[in-house]
Amino acid sequence: MLKVGVVGATGYAGEEVINILIRHKGVEITELSAIIDKEEPISSLLPVFKGKLDIICKKPDPEGMAKNVDLVFLGLPHTVSMKIAPVFLKAGKLVVDLSADYRLDPKVYEKWYGVAHKDTINLTQAVYGLPELYRDSIKKARLLANPGCYPTSVILGIAPALFEKAIDRSSIIADSKSGATGAGRKADIGLIFCEINENLKAYKVNEHQHKPEINTILSRVAGEDINIVFTPHLIPMNRGILSTIYLKLTRSMTTEAVVELYKKFYHGKPFVRVYDAGKLPQVRDVVGTNFCDIGVKVSGSTLIVVSCIDNLTKGAAGQAVQNMNLMCGFDETEGLM
Amino acid sequence: MLKVGVVGATGYAGEEVINILIRHKGVEITELSAIIDKEEPISSLLPVFKGKLDIICKKPDPEGMAKNVDLVFLGLPHTVSMKIAPVFLKAGKLVVDLSADYRLDPKVYEKWYGVAHKDTINLTQAVYGLPELYRDSIKKARLLANPGCYPTSVILGIAPALFEKAIDRSSIIADSKSGATGAGRKADIGLIFCEINENLKAYKVNEHQHKPEINTILSRVAGEDINIVFTPHLIPMNRGILSTIYLKLTRSMTTEAVVELYKKFYHGKPFVRVYDAGKLPQVRDVVGTNFCDIGVKVSGSTLIVVSCIDNLTKGAAGQAVQNMNLMCGFDETEGLM
Amino acid sequence: MLKVGVVGATGYAGEEVINILIRHKGVEITELSAIIDKEEPISSLLPVFKGKLDIICKKPDPEGMAKNVDLVFLGLPHTVSMKIAPVFLKAGKLVVDLSADYRLDPKVYEKWYGVAHKDTINLTQAVYGLPELYRDSIKKARLLANPGCYPTSVILGIAPALFEKAIDRSSIIADSKSGATGAGRKADIGLIFCEINENLKAYKVNEHQHKPEINTILSRVAGEDINIVFTPHLIPMNRGILSTIYLKLTRSMTTEAVVELYKKFYHGKPFVRVYDAGKLPQVRDVVGTNFCDIGVKVSGSTLIVVSCIDNLTKGAAGQAVQNMNLMCGFDETEGLM
Amino acid sequence: MLKVGVVGATGYAGEEVINILIRHKGVEITELSAIIDKEEPISSLLPVFKGKLDIICKKPDPEGMAKNVDLVFLGLPHTVSMKIAPVFLKAGKLVVDLSADYRLDPKVYEKWYGVAHKDTINLTQAVYGLPELYRDSIKKARLLANPGCYPTSVILGIAPALFEKAIDRSSIIADSKSGATGAGRKADIGLIFCEINENLKAYKVNEHQHKPEINTILSRVAGEDINIVFTPHLIPMNRGILSTIYLKLTRSMTTEAVVELYKKFYHGKPFVRVYDAGKLPQVRDVVGTNFCDIGVKVSGSTLIVVSCIDNLTKGAAGQAVQNMNLMCGFDETEGLM
Repeated sequence: MLKVGVVGATGYAGEEVINILIRHKGVEITELSAIIDKEEPISSLLPVFKGKLDIICKKPDPEGMAKNVDLVFLGLPHTVSMKIAPVFLKAGKLVVDLSADYRLDPKVYEKWYGVAHKDTINLTQAVYGLPELYRDSIKKARLLANPGCYPTSVILGIAPALFEKAIDRSSIIADSKSGATGAGRKADIGLIFCEINENLKAYKVNEHQHKPEINTILSRVAGEDINIVFTPHLIPMNRGILSTIYLKLTRSMTTEAVVELYKKFYHGKPFVRVYDAGKLPQVRDVVGTNFCDIGVKVSGSTLIVVSCIDNLTKGAAGQAVQNMNLMCGFDETEGLM
Repeated sequence: MLKVGVVGATGYAGEEVINILIRHKGVEITELSAIIDKEEPISSLLPVFKGKLDIICKKPDPEGMAKNVDLVFLGLPHTVSMKIAPVFLKAGKLVVDLSADYRLDPKVYEKWYGVAHKDTINLTQAVYGLPELYRDSIKKARLLANPGCYPTSVILGIAPALFEKAIDRSSIIADSKSGATGAGRKADIGLIFCEINENLKAYKVNEHQHKPEINTILSRVAGEDINIVFTPHLIPMNRGILSTIYLKLTRSMTTEAVVELYKKFYHGKPFVRVYDAGKLPQVRDVVGTNFCDIGVKVSGSTLIVVSCIDNLTKGAAGQAVQNMNLMCGFDETEGLM
Repeated sequence: MLKVGVVGATGYAGEEVINILIRHKGVEITELSAIIDKEEPISSLLPVFKGKLDIICKKPDPEGMAKNVDLVFLGLPHTVSMKIAPVFLKAGKLVVDLSADYRLDPKVYEKWYGVAHKDTINLTQAVYGLPELYRDSIKKARLLANPGCYPTSVILGIAPALFEKAIDRSSIIADSKSGATGAGRKADIGLIFCEINENLKAYKVNEHQHKPEINTILSRVAGEDINIVFTPHLIPMNRGILSTIYLKLTRSMTTEAVVELYKKFYHGKPFVRVYDAGKLPQVRDVVGTNFCDIGVKVSGSTLIVVSCIDNLTKGAAGQAVQNMNLMCGFDETEGLM
Repeated sequence: MLKVGVVGATGYAGEEVINILIRHKGVEITELSAIIDKEEPISSLLPVFKGKLDIICKKPDPEGMAKNVDLVFLGLPHTVSMKIAPVFLKAGKLVVDLSADYRLDPKVYEKWYGVAHKDTINLTQAVYGLPELYRDSIKKARLLANPGCYPTSVILGIAPALFEKAIDRSSIIADSKSGATGAGRKADIGLIFCEINENLKAYKVNEHQHKPEINTILSRVAGEDINIVFTPHLIPMNRGILSTIYLKLTRSMTTEAVVELYKKFYHGKPFVRVYDAGKLPQVRDVVGTNFCDIGVKVSGSTLIVVSCIDNLTKGAAGQAVQNMNLMCGFDETEGLM
């Protein structure tokens, strides 16, 4: 059994990692930590785990935890992970980091996250954990940068058309809509129920910190610089992201032909479900699953792609476990079906 | 025109007071204040008021504000109002306090709110602002203690049967369900969207601070001590309270007879709507209104009363304006229909 | 007092028309009708009107109703209005039609609504009721075609930039998100609570029947044919539309310059609120109001416009009353502020 | 592998049964049926099953289906099950019926469901499937009457105190709140999103058809006739029931003593979690699980019990699988943890 720890166990992503690991046949959860007042069983902090998992959630102590895990998930805020990950790496442990700290070039990171990168050495060996694109590298990773939720949804929706050079690279627009767990479990007046319920807003229009992440990966896919237009929106629901993506076809294609292209691209990828022409995915069918559901529609020279994920599963905890499965030689879908 | 101020203008109750006063023909809003970083137009702080009201919302300065108002609404947290109200009273201004600070006997207050009362002198002259019970006293009030949201819903649902001695005074149970605005606009991890949405909980079971307020008023109605059982619940919606009240009839009555009793009791009270036998109110029909809708059903010796209000209107801001109308000689319904 | 009737009084739009007319100083509601089992007071059918309006809601009888109204609102499904409107017009009454029946050229209508137009004679004299563009024609209208909800939001968001030739006319994308009242009050398994709650979907992608309406009006504004890309989405909230619009600037402009352009275009239009640079509207600030709130952001050569309305108010009933005000010589904002 | 079929596969309960069976190690889903226009893979009808289950969902044909199953789940409306169950029983197959058809005495059934019982012979051998009370009988059942959602929540909340004679049997009040899946997936104007969202109502007050079911089982527990007061409420959320139960203690007990009594009663029952004194359950912690979470609080002579379940899991599909596990010799928790 692989010994696994979770740092940041009481956040939404940490809770979901635990929830998935409980169903995983190859791992044992040996360590949990979070910033808490008192060390007590995780089932006291999060009653959802009563009768399922009773180990103690400790206060943060990376050095101590490193002695008792083979792999650790870091469910931490940006800028904190890069201080903690080196402790585990130095102890020879595998790290799956759910923050943005190991996803970007240090200059880009500094520009978008406002601080200089503190761990540029480990950064060079970090692998971006989108298995549908980078499965082979992931298998060899020691430090895994788990993708952001919006980037997962947007990149998977664009990559096939971009890779096949079917679209104009200078005219990519992603209009994304996310449930509120995407903002994390934190006390913030903008996140309270009555501010989000019966409301809808765009935010950080074309300035969201996930935009450079999307651009970085799409540029790799295209082999040249890509700069998309990206608008995130906050939706009154707990979970789910739906991205509506507007692309310009460079050659005449039918919806059926694009469906074919996408199905071929994702052949053998267990967590992408491409819809037949005439059908489009919706959030409810991916909530609680690790699937990314994709539907397409051609209208004249415009290709519209609708891409859906659960932001906490394929957009965070589920993808993190999928990456762990690849890194540790488990079946890619273990614990996730 | 009556010059009116609102202290705590950016809270949910303060915002709703402003919203109602804008439609009121007899008042002019001359002063607004709140704890804010920068003084700016209320329409910048709360864009809902763009094009409707543009006066500056100031930082707290009771003495300064008192010079420019005839009446002030205090939309403040408990324990704060009793420090501010005396300033306005001393300057000879009318005060409508939406907090609990002037609703209870000082000993009861100290027990339930955890601090000694700081303004016992003014407390003795405060009038409890439930117009359906105390209209005449309210007309003469200088300091008005606006009722709590749960008490408004529960007391109006019980008072007729209790006053008419139709029920057992020792067996009163109120099971109340409230929308999330009842908790106020504050950063609290328990109030964030994903903790309330798709959830439901009872809280402060038979220990809520509104229980002594209900007991105090019902004891006055009954002419002897009343001690109810009271359980509040938090519901995933913005506005509204529905109280389901379980009473024991002391004599055999039909549903129709109880309807008759309630209609008679509330005759001439413009904001109570008693439903005919066979019909029961629901929250959607009172949201955004100052009505308290009441339906009853007799089953054997049990009388079940369903009482609905909008917690921000009849349960706070609307009732506050209704009280102002009575205190200042306006029509009781001005601004509220 | 203008005598006014509402056909389709129990639908969401009909209910909201009544709700607004109750507050209107210049009208008297003399007639209500709907497809109902039994004629009874509207306050029995819709308890929200208890104590506010008690007139009888009758079964449909256009000829009878026409004798007792000066103006009628038709809150009817598409294809039904064109059978009813002629009755009122023949009797010399004014008609405000909230359906799509008088908005489009008959050929376009037949293509998108699937039936031949039944009243092409009256259609020629119908005026499209978007007051921000057509105030003068509206004042003289006998038959008013009240705009669709999505078109109101999208056209108002694009018109200034289009009219000023600031954008590429061949590259207009509108990504719209609507609350569920937009689908009407009807029994449909796709509309039940658990299918919409905690869900999100795109539908009728670039094939929605409001697209030709948007194209028709924008083509008039531009003076040449416009064909936009339009994707509607269904959001788990009751009311509100937010449209995120992606445009290509034809000349270099700052956000501030675009704000200026929009403010100038909407100068003197009481129901459009243009936000200053750096601020964007959200749904909560327009719900229950007749405002269309617009914010803009320039990023490189891309202009992103966010346009918000309440779909039942500015997107239906409120705009209908605004049009009635213009047709009948009332102040444009009467009943709506 | 046990061959299992689901009749009514596209309803909420049927969907959830399938969802659980997919994770169950001892069964194979061999047959699905529903009232549908066209026979197609269940993953086309319910895309949530894409990539998980692709067998054809057929039109109803009980005789045909009976040949290919060992056990069948009936997710059918009341009054329909009793026409279908005999087909499977006659063929020697096990039946787990999720409707109310085999839960009540035929006279009580006729009174509350409005039709005479059509299968009184099989009814006599039906076992009420509440495993916490009737595990031994369930193991031998051929026809299992799966309990209603409200009864599961209410009975489990009352049974320990009632069995131990700690409470007054004549004064039991259950105030239950349910999410909207409880009403099923059907086109009904009262169930559409905008009628339930931002609303709250009591319905069928003390007249709900689950009341006689609760009374029947509690009377068995008590050994004498019990008649409770029961009010259900509809809450704007998808899943979950929270019942707040008001009881009168017949002897002085502390909260701790009641907790002890409940823990003892449910010792060895894997799906009941009794909370320690001072803590109360909430819906979010049981959603998606088969747990019934129970918390208690004593206040004077009043015992308040809060009992939470997921109405589709412990209140329907989960409990149905738990019963199948007992009937077929699987571990009671297989597929449910």
